[in-house]
Amino acid sequence: MSTFKQAFKAAPYKVNGHGPLTVGALQTALASMDPDTPADHYGSGAIIEEFQQQMAAFVGKEAAVFFPSGTMAQQIVLRMWCDEQHCPTVAYHPLSHLEMYEEKGLHTLHPINVLTLGDSDRLFTLEDVKNLHERVACILVELPQRDLGGELPSLAELRALSSYCKEHNIKLHLDGARLFEVLPYYDVSAPKICELFDSVYLSFYKGLGGVAGAVLAGDAEFMKPAKVWKRRYGGDLISLYPYIVSASDSFTLRLPRMKQYYEQAQQLASNYNACPLLSTRPVVPVCNMFHVHIDLPKETVETILIAVMQETGIALTGHVNAVSDTTSFFEVTSGDLYPTVPQDKLAHAFASLTQHLQGGVLHGNESHQ
Amino acid sequence: MSTFKQAFKAAPYKVNGHGPLTVGALQTALASMDPDTPADHYGSGAIIEEFQQQMAAFVGKEAAVFFPSGTMAQQIVLRMWCDEQHCPTVAYHPLSHLEMYEEKGLHTLHPINVLTLGDSDRLFTLEDVKNLHERVACILVELPQRDLGGELPSLAELRALSSYCKEHNIKLHLDGARLFEVLPYYDVSAPKICELFDSVYLSFYKGLGGVAGAVLAGDAEFMKPAKVWKRRYGGDLISLYPYIVSASDSFTLRLPRMKQYYEQAQQLASNYNACPLLSTRPVVPVCNMFHVHIDLPKETVETILIAVMQETGIALTGHVNAVSDTTSFFEVTSGDLYPTVPQDKLAHAFASLTQHLQGGVLHGNESHQ
Repeated sequence: MSTFKQAFKAAPYKVNGHGPLTVGALQTALASMDPDTPADHYGSGAIIEEFQQQMAAFVGKEAAVFFPSGTMAQQIVLRMWCDEQHCPTVAYHPLSHLEMYEEKGLHTLHPINVLTLGDSDRLFTLEDVKNLHERVACILVELPQRDLGGELPSLAELRALSSYCKEHNIKLHLDGARLFEVLPYYDVSAPKICELFDSVYLSFYKGLGGVAGAVLAGDAEFMKPAKVWKRRYGGDLISLYPYIVSASDSFTLRLPRMKQYYEQAQQLASNYNACPLLSTRPVVPVCNMFHVHIDLPKETVETILIAVMQETGIALTGHVNAVSDTTSFFEVTSGDLYPTVPQDKLAHAFASLTQHLQGGVLHGNESHQ
Repeated sequence: MSTFKQAFKAAPYKVNGHGPLTVGALQTALASMDPDTPADHYGSGAIIEEFQQQMAAFVGKEAAVFFPSGTMAQQIVLRMWCDEQHCPTVAYHPLSHLEMYEEKGLHTLHPINVLTLGDSDRLFTLEDVKNLHERVACILVELPQRDLGGELPSLAELRALSSYCKEHNIKLHLDGARLFEVLPYYDVSAPKICELFDSVYLSFYKGLGGVAGAVLAGDAEFMKPAKVWKRRYGGDLISLYPYIVSASDSFTLRLPRMKQYYEQAQQLASNYNACPLLSTRPVVPVCNMFHVHIDLPKETVETILIAVMQETGIALTGHVNAVSDTTSFFEVTSGDLYPTVPQDKLAHAFASLTQHLQGGVLHGNESHQ
């Protein structure tokens, strides 16, 4: 384990997330259940069917199918739209999860062409969609765009995109891995957002903090092949209840806290933006997450964060990413831990960070001489 | 729910399996764990790595990867052998799981050709392999062949097949969904069987009775792409521990009982074969499972089994399959429930079955006049 990871582990206060992932979370979710509660059985049974219905109702769609993962659910929904539209092409942002984190699964497992929309340093716009040079079956929109620090289009922009796609017979799919997290910003119900989309994917382990699992929702007729594809992928497990029980528990527990997480993120971003050499993306967060970009190399930032941890006991992050030889960033996700950090200690940490960053200019420059 | 299913549910004694699948099984498996035990994280962490090592050692292979399902693991291993061998063709029995229960996932997700070996009423033989008219990258062998009632080739036949495949550079993959279950019959260690194969898949929810999950094992170098494919499929969940904890618990609990299950199956088959109009496949079971074939239509068999349940309280099966308009079969799997059935009541049930089958000849004939 690196010195940085060790220091992170040893720090008494972590600012981000809900705390370490442990088996205790599942023990707690199962604790109140009657041991004789029947397991789901290959997609049937009250435990899966009722949760699917609950999630379909939550997003205002007719039908929902529970999947082990969003990777599986989203490759499948794009294939379903291609089949339904008799068109082998889809479009999404170049930083989509499908391009970044899935080892090119969509490209390897399906005869689907992908067009990218916009650039990797900004959200795509309706103009980018209008400029598509060929027909697409479906456009995937990720709300928020995680790899842009969780940026969001406005509701007006989404409505214009939805209208355009309806007019041009392009299906619109919502990558709502963090949909729960953006509801406080949009300040409308989930169905009001999801009615702009033909299909929706939800995840239960990001802001909600469940063990794993995903739901895909849409019209009942459209959703029928989802279970066939789920079986083809090996996702139609004899029982998915461990994830469903945890998803349901986390949904009940943390959905009401999304506004609090969002406000915490805004406070945190404001603290970061008062430091030298730093800026957050977005400057004002629109959900529970944002990115901190630093004009210093990853190693320098880690050294500074270790010093902050040792002086104040506060761990601001456990993972720094290099952007270039001279710049880096880290992701901040506010959750249940933030209120456990004493405000005076947090203020001390940001004062320490400021001080070290002022010194870090020299250090950062030195390391490149 | 059908009258038959209702009668099954109401019967005080079920002969087959380990009992109903309930959330209690996972509660029990988790109960002894420290709540602070860290979850696995995208394939890393002690909880997944140690179990993978344990299973690799159990089958005598260098490396193992835990998968959510065997469907996923086996499509992937066949693709890996095709890539490794630069040959797009594999061969397996026409009743393989890949043909019967996976909605043609292999065919839909991969550019792989399948040749079938043998016929759907018998195991394939070395002769069938010698008669293959084109080169194949890999042959999949299912031990036991579930849809033939759990029939097995002899160890000598397996050794001859393995030698032939080695000589001809054909990789041999073991579909060991029920490998644990056949160890008492072969009466050799798992590595002694698995050394005949280049790769092995194990399942944790059949005879072992875990919640779900699978392991794929082979040489370390060969296994490297397995994690990449697992991610492509959406099987690289942030945490798989619910299935791993249950698999580990079930492995410890039920592996030592496999001989008992096997002997119970032999006793049960002997009882069945003493009845008229019935025969088991195999006549003498070679593991914990067999099929009961009946020269009567499914509906008649259900009517008879309802009468047996009502007279004796014994449910011999909860599911009958039609083979033709005049014949049917059901699967028997012996497990933890068998010893809970009083032997005198079981004898009563087989006497009742015999009596009704004698009447059923008339009934069966009547229904076709």
